[in-house]
Amino acid sequence: MHAYRSHTCADLTAANVGQTVRLSGWVHRIRDHGGILFIDLRDHYGITQVLCDPDSPVFAEVEKVRSEWCIRIDGEVKARDESLINPKLPTGEIEVFVRDMEVLGAAKELPLIVFGDQEYPEETRLRYRYLDLRREAMQRNMTLRSDVVSSMRRRMWDQGFREYQTPIITASSPEGARDFLVPSRLHPGKFYALPQAPQQFKQLIMVSGFDKYFQIAPCFRDEDPRADRSPTDFYQLDMEMSFVTQQDVFDTISPVLAGVFEEFGGGRKVDAPAEWPQISYRDAALWYGTDKPDLRNPIKMQVVSEHFAGSGFAIFAKLLEQEGTEIRAIPAPKGGSRKFCDRMNAFAQKEGLPGMGYIFWRDKDGEMEAAGPLAKNIGPERTDAIRQQLGLGVGDAAFFLGGKPESFQTVAGKARTVIGDELGLTDTDRFAFAWIVDFPIYEKDDETGEIDFEHNPFSMPQGGMEALEGDPLKVLGYQYDLACNGYELVSGAIRNHRPEIMFKAFEIAGYGEDEVRKRFGGMVNAFQFGAPPHGGCAAGIDRIVMLLADEQNIREVIMFPMNQRAEDLMMGAPSEPSPEQLMELNLRVIPQD
Amino acid sequence: MHAYRSHTCADLTAANVGQTVRLSGWVHRIRDHGGILFIDLRDHYGITQVLCDPDSPVFAEVEKVRSEWCIRIDGEVKARDESLINPKLPTGEIEVFVRDMEVLGAAKELPLIVFGDQEYPEETRLRYRYLDLRREAMQRNMTLRSDVVSSMRRRMWDQGFREYQTPIITASSPEGARDFLVPSRLHPGKFYALPQAPQQFKQLIMVSGFDKYFQIAPCFRDEDPRADRSPTDFYQLDMEMSFVTQQDVFDTISPVLAGVFEEFGGGRKVDAPAEWPQISYRDAALWYGTDKPDLRNPIKMQVVSEHFAGSGFAIFAKLLEQEGTEIRAIPAPKGGSRKFCDRMNAFAQKEGLPGMGYIFWRDKDGEMEAAGPLAKNIGPERTDAIRQQLGLGVGDAAFFLGGKPESFQTVAGKARTVIGDELGLTDTDRFAFAWIVDFPIYEKDDETGEIDFEHNPFSMPQGGMEALEGDPLKVLGYQYDLACNGYELVSGAIRNHRPEIMFKAFEIAGYGEDEVRKRFGGMVNAFQFGAPPHGGCAAGIDRIVMLLADEQNIREVIMFPMNQRAEDLMMGAPSEPSPEQLMELNLRVIPQD
Repeated sequence: MHAYRSHTCADLTAANVGQTVRLSGWVHRIRDHGGILFIDLRDHYGITQVLCDPDSPVFAEVEKVRSEWCIRIDGEVKARDESLINPKLPTGEIEVFVRDMEVLGAAKELPLIVFGDQEYPEETRLRYRYLDLRREAMQRNMTLRSDVVSSMRRRMWDQGFREYQTPIITASSPEGARDFLVPSRLHPGKFYALPQAPQQFKQLIMVSGFDKYFQIAPCFRDEDPRADRSPTDFYQLDMEMSFVTQQDVFDTISPVLAGVFEEFGGGRKVDAPAEWPQISYRDAALWYGTDKPDLRNPIKMQVVSEHFAGSGFAIFAKLLEQEGTEIRAIPAPKGGSRKFCDRMNAFAQKEGLPGMGYIFWRDKDGEMEAAGPLAKNIGPERTDAIRQQLGLGVGDAAFFLGGKPESFQTVAGKARTVIGDELGLTDTDRFAFAWIVDFPIYEKDDETGEIDFEHNPFSMPQGGMEALEGDPLKVLGYQYDLACNGYELVSGAIRNHRPEIMFKAFEIAGYGEDEVRKRFGGMVNAFQFGAPPHGGCAAGIDRIVMLLADEQNIREVIMFPMNQRAEDLMMGAPSEPSPEQLMELNLRVIPQD
Repeated sequence: MHAYRSHTCADLTAANVGQTVRLSGWVHRIRDHGGILFIDLRDHYGITQVLCDPDSPVFAEVEKVRSEWCIRIDGEVKARDESLINPKLPTGEIEVFVRDMEVLGAAKELPLIVFGDQEYPEETRLRYRYLDLRREAMQRNMTLRSDVVSSMRRRMWDQGFREYQTPIITASSPEGARDFLVPSRLHPGKFYALPQAPQQFKQLIMVSGFDKYFQIAPCFRDEDPRADRSPTDFYQLDMEMSFVTQQDVFDTISPVLAGVFEEFGGGRKVDAPAEWPQISYRDAALWYGTDKPDLRNPIKMQVVSEHFAGSGFAIFAKLLEQEGTEIRAIPAPKGGSRKFCDRMNAFAQKEGLPGMGYIFWRDKDGEMEAAGPLAKNIGPERTDAIRQQLGLGVGDAAFFLGGKPESFQTVAGKARTVIGDELGLTDTDRFAFAWIVDFPIYEKDDETGEIDFEHNPFSMPQGGMEALEGDPLKVLGYQYDLACNGYELVSGAIRNHRPEIMFKAFEIAGYGEDEVRKRFGGMVNAFQFGAPPHGGCAAGIDRIVMLLADEQNIREVIMFPMNQRAEDLMMGAPSEPSPEQLMELNLRVIPQD
């Protein structure tokens, strides 16, 4: 017989009754029922009930065993009494009577109980991650993550992509975040950087003629920690293709992601890629108040300025006399109660706005009546025009926000989410995708008036060189995001592969040719030797797994995450280097006050 | 029609004749044959011959095109004249007559020609890697590498393994090489380290109950560059299993590797895993002079001390009076000529030994005669005993080395290789594998007399605690390597998962409990909470691909390698950080003299 197991803890069924078997695993729970010891023996695959009665030659040893000890047992498989069969357990038809036992690894007193759902502080969970990971939910999340990643790989291979590994110890690749630096021992005073993304390398792979690249790529950004972002390294499904248009990229990556969500979504509805809308950045802001809209929520905001211009509601009427202002409505079907409307008004105030005006429509003696202060101020005609524009009726409400869109848009987006949630309009059993397209290439800094890149600077401007010669703030890029349930899952672009257009684009943002060559020299030089048109995208793996696992915190889907202060308490990182290490690297730490 | 291509450059055959097609790719070669321009248009998939005659509306533009420009053409597919069909090219039946052309990316004068086999200095190749990678051999090597890695993944999945990603920015994991350090911005004066291997993490994954782990894992070692080693990052197929014996690990990884070598070995013979010998470290040293023997070479060395003890060959006879010495023979079938024997003797001298004695057997008037100085000295009886022990005859030779094995073993191993190669005994069309087992856990430093670990300190000693209580130099580990054609492809062990045995093992090597907790705290703590027996191995991917691609230099199978001084000339790494970066990291560079 094998030294450790003839079966896993998920294998045994009624068909094994009478056999002598060997199992290894952890003591999930041990109970003493009238002198008989019951052990739930657990391994990665399942749980088997193991019994030891006083007749067993190892009874005295088994009595000493405690939770989370790792043991090996030999025993006889017996059928359970009909009444004791556990249909929820694959091994629920049998139990194993222990004849021999070996302690493979004993356990000290546990800082964290593995069975059950007891909550522990995150510090405890991370410090004893190897115990935390034994818990059922974590085993599930980690295997889910692994299965999601392997499914992505299979799907990319099936589309003719190959995975190519790009350097991890490399040059700085300024992408907007801070680099992690790595001091060079062989070149004192010089540093490598860890890649924020393999952006330049994947573009170089296209220039090298490889046509279709992908990588489950580790990315490194020295950012301050957030719940949905790892403070050190994270993974992306990174891909790039040559000789493609934006639509080609969509047609390639959409079925991969839809397939993954179908496969691991646990039956939640997944919108078919053909139905994923393409919404311009401008429309997304208008309709949803965000560039990562949650389309499970059917609410779409509308501009209703015309109904308030010159109306009796002086605040809005005056507001509209200023340039660049507008009034937007958030329709709230089924939200037609004063209580609800007041609650939403209070929400807006909590978010820092003066409040949200509202109208709601109710039944009064068989007639529709518009209620709320706004309705009185603008009168029945305008009120009804608004109602008709928004397609509302009795029992519904609408909320109004006014001013320059930048000033209220974000809160409007949040209000839309809360309204959808509270009114039960949002279909929580669904993954709703949308491509957000036509991002502007540039933005103007409100304070300095200077023009800078809105996203990363490598995207091809729509209209090429000609467009760059007009008003830069009107230039849109072949640049896109994929939003799902309110998260940005994917970001990408058709790249600017023409050196002359690239230099011009940078010039507009205030970067001279020298600066561009210095910062992106590898790529810019390469573009001078026959660069193909190319584009691609990157999908955030941690976030995708979070959505599929229905978790709110990225640390639930990473095997060994850092804590919120970017520390690994289990391994003791970061730590002080030895004087020899610093000397070899030719570095001195500046003493802190 | 698609913006860039209706077909790839490998697609078109006689079946497409008459169609109007669109192709994009690089100008591989352009020739002018009597006023007609012939372009070999190349993409990742193949080459298509494209023609432009003066009737074409774009003739003048096509005339300007140069090598490695990236272009898009529209044209009509025509059948080639029977006499011009190129059966070596998938598209060899057709050619495309250009009607329209667009320059997608022009190229400056090329520092490196893509077609043909011209050699360039490595610095040129790496600085213009995107051109170098366009060359046929590099396209082949990179796709091979990608295909090998994906085949490994499929084979591991098929065996029930899941891939789990381990941290890259983490704690120091002393494995014998130097760590790369990463300064922490949030914790001034503290540093992270990049993992030399995910050793501790994969063991923690076992303690966490995951049972079967693998990862195509990036590893980081700050080592001085060598031809078969990357100076920064490299990849391993890293795996670990719980509840296994050494043989289980062999049975798991052997079919994966054999499968990969079968699949990509280009028809070279691959020994079946059942035939892979398990050779003890001691026997490997004796028979082959190395722990990574090349078994394609059938030569096996033997101890022949008895035949020289007290013999007339005074040098060996005296040598054998000292303790720990022996005489070894390298049999050289078919090496029976003085010229060959003298050449091998000279080889040994070049390697720093006084020389290699030899005997060779030749035909003298129908009788076998033993020739060479040694034979004369020891006389016919002893000479023939040696011949019989080695199984040699007329036309064969044997070489002899004497002393303490450590003093000549390495040269003996090299001589064995040269003899096998020169005599054509080595089957170059084969991949020959052998497990090397029973490595000693400890070695004694000749100078200090101190005992230290021979390999990594995490292996389980054979015989457990009891063995550690005896002579440490006699303790063998459950520790193994897989050798193939003279390379170490895999290294692994059954781990020491019992804290008390681990502390004892470290104590013998001079490390106190505190030191062990400080250096390997994450793992040692974990072992106190029910650790399962576990073991695994790691296979060097770069080296495997090198063998399959029949390359001698690791940089031929890495997309963007560093040069020999650990620099990336294309991207400009490493480079000087900005003063702001250093300030944020709280570091000062010590000025160099």
